[in-house]
Amino acid sequence: MKTTNQFGRRAFLTRATVGGATAAAGAALAAPAIAQEMPEITWRMTTSFPKSTEALHNTGIYLTNALAEATDGKFRIQHFAAGEIVGGLQAADAVMEGTVEAAHTVGYYYWGKDPAWAVGSAIPFSLNYRGMNAWNYAGGGVDLYNEFLAGHGLVGFPGGNTGVQMGGWYRKEINTVDDLKGLKFRVGGFAGYVLERLGVVPQQLAGGDIYPALEKGTLDAVEFTGPFDDEKLGFVKVAPYYYSPGFWEGAPTVHFFFSKEKFEALPKHYQAILRNCCRAADQEMLAIYDWNNPKALMRLVQEGAQLRTFSPEIMSAAFDAANEIYAEMAEKHEWFKKLWESITAFRSEHYTYTQLVDFQYDYYMMQLNGQKRL
Amino acid sequence: MKTTNQFGRRAFLTRATVGGATAAAGAALAAPAIAQEMPEITWRMTTSFPKSTEALHNTGIYLTNALAEATDGKFRIQHFAAGEIVGGLQAADAVMEGTVEAAHTVGYYYWGKDPAWAVGSAIPFSLNYRGMNAWNYAGGGVDLYNEFLAGHGLVGFPGGNTGVQMGGWYRKEINTVDDLKGLKFRVGGFAGYVLERLGVVPQQLAGGDIYPALEKGTLDAVEFTGPFDDEKLGFVKVAPYYYSPGFWEGAPTVHFFFSKEKFEALPKHYQAILRNCCRAADQEMLAIYDWNNPKALMRLVQEGAQLRTFSPEIMSAAFDAANEIYAEMAEKHEWFKKLWESITAFRSEHYTYTQLVDFQYDYYMMQLNGQKRL
Repeated sequence: MKTTNQFGRRAFLTRATVGGATAAAGAALAAPAIAQEMPEITWRMTTSFPKSTEALHNTGIYLTNALAEATDGKFRIQHFAAGEIVGGLQAADAVMEGTVEAAHTVGYYYWGKDPAWAVGSAIPFSLNYRGMNAWNYAGGGVDLYNEFLAGHGLVGFPGGNTGVQMGGWYRKEINTVDDLKGLKFRVGGFAGYVLERLGVVPQQLAGGDIYPALEKGTLDAVEFTGPFDDEKLGFVKVAPYYYSPGFWEGAPTVHFFFSKEKFEALPKHYQAILRNCCRAADQEMLAIYDWNNPKALMRLVQEGAQLRTFSPEIMSAAFDAANEIYAEMAEKHEWFKKLWESITAFRSEHYTYTQLVDFQYDYYMMQLNGQKRL
Repeated sequence: MKTTNQFGRRAFLTRATVGGATAAAGAALAAPAIAQEMPEITWRMTTSFPKSTEALHNTGIYLTNALAEATDGKFRIQHFAAGEIVGGLQAADAVMEGTVEAAHTVGYYYWGKDPAWAVGSAIPFSLNYRGMNAWNYAGGGVDLYNEFLAGHGLVGFPGGNTGVQMGGWYRKEINTVDDLKGLKFRVGGFAGYVLERLGVVPQQLAGGDIYPALEKGTLDAVEFTGPFDDEKLGFVKVAPYYYSPGFWEGAPTVHFFFSKEKFEALPKHYQAILRNCCRAADQEMLAIYDWNNPKALMRLVQEGAQLRTFSPEIMSAAFDAANEIYAEMAEKHEWFKKLWESITAFRSEHYTYTQLVDFQYDYYMMQLNGQKRL
């Protein structure tokens, strides 16, 4: 652990003490409280993202820069990419174990401990971005997830969102549920668990092994995030069918997790600054993806990507499988039940409203776009 | 003007000065820089929003609270509702004239000075929220708008978004462009200017006069924001046809405007804190609307609101009228041209991507919702 909380490393002086020794001695009594005004603190943050995943990785840097600027360099968090301190999937563990004070990661990586971890980030057929944002900040989502996280010694704030992710790269077209049977698919843990029920065979492969496996056909498909990240991986050459939507990630909330003990020991205004910086970072990541994904997708299409959408048959079967699993999980895991019920209580009204209002605008704009009038 | 920038009002002391007069005298040379660490500053912010527009009004309060918390109460902005210092539509003027340091308002209120003001907030058929967010923060929108605002002595940061607004309350159904001819419609300035070209007769009425005018039929329709605000106004009883979408406000960016001179005189870390707090407030408003609008809309329907969508004929005619006007404005107003070209360069690719990815998810979720499976 490498926390430095060096109170009073700099000399402060004001007119009140310029008078001389007496004033200085008098004021000295109040020093402990006053010296905390802007204490120097250095934390370390390990993340789940390699440098190549630009938007994910750089949102952590955005946070650490914003924090340093807001505290005149007094409160610093050192940023470490995946693997520099611990592996990407152990980021939250490193905070829980006290190795570092902070992590930038995604809750669903830890679903094996308790599926509740995943609900605060994304599970299949959950809310879209606008819904998650509303639930998180206005619907008590951040607070409820923090009640759960407190049991693990953590405090968590949303720290980014990708929007709806793509459904991955496939060597062959996938039209029916039958096409999923035996499909060797590199897909994340929670989503893989749901897809397994439809016959998919989830695979775990290290980054560098994926491309050759896809080329040889020992792997049939792979999913990652969206075009801006995916284009760097070059899968278009060996698995050109690019499916949307990634129905298991309608709007994953990435999180900053902090040691609850360390967070609570911060001066109150540092806590407030950190929260604001997290929130700015949360919004920043979505902006970066939304600005860059369209351009990346067009480039991918030019390189040969064949865009496809999952058939209603597949979506419907996946929805049913997910609900089956959620019912099982809710029986066994109290916090999964609490969090998921909180989201589903809002989900239907959210999509009803979206359809009646925001969608009416978007749909018309998409029509104009299709008519080449934009 | 009521700026207090009282450096050194509190006595700071550290171990370095406890040694006595000599140390104190030596350190005194550095006092001017050091005393600025957390200076006490009080600003005033006038807003365009009455207390009744809860989400709009309270987002300003959110900012002032967040700022006070982040600076341990040292940097405070006093919040004033519309009319308490100046009228709601003079909020930006009050900053430009030096009456106050800050305003929470919407750029399009000032379009009469130069239509460029409106482009940074919303003009008809501009981007939706995700698009505006991407353009603002990743596409250089905030910076470009600030280049324009600098000419007016202002710095501006996004300070909220309502999402797609509703298209207003109508006494009768509106199906064709002919139905718009002579329609006495209380509608905001820029949108009114566009709709006028389709035969609408825009009206300006003070808040309290609208309801009786609608009741008597001296007014045919009124638009405000969305269900959460609209339900407080009670128009459902006298003008029950509630139209979507408000195609003139696909995602209005509300702004915090600050005196450029005052902002630049702030310590750098106060500038950074203020920016972060604005950004948190920006995201907060959308969350509040998205959480509350669905519930409010359902209540309105129970009170008799008849939901309607504008016909493609009306939308298309409005789109053409808007483009005609934009071409005229671009010829006369350099900054309108610059800002609008920056947005339209992104608009088509944004909606293409939305249709191919995010929409695929939302559409399926809306289908499930329609089948009562959510």
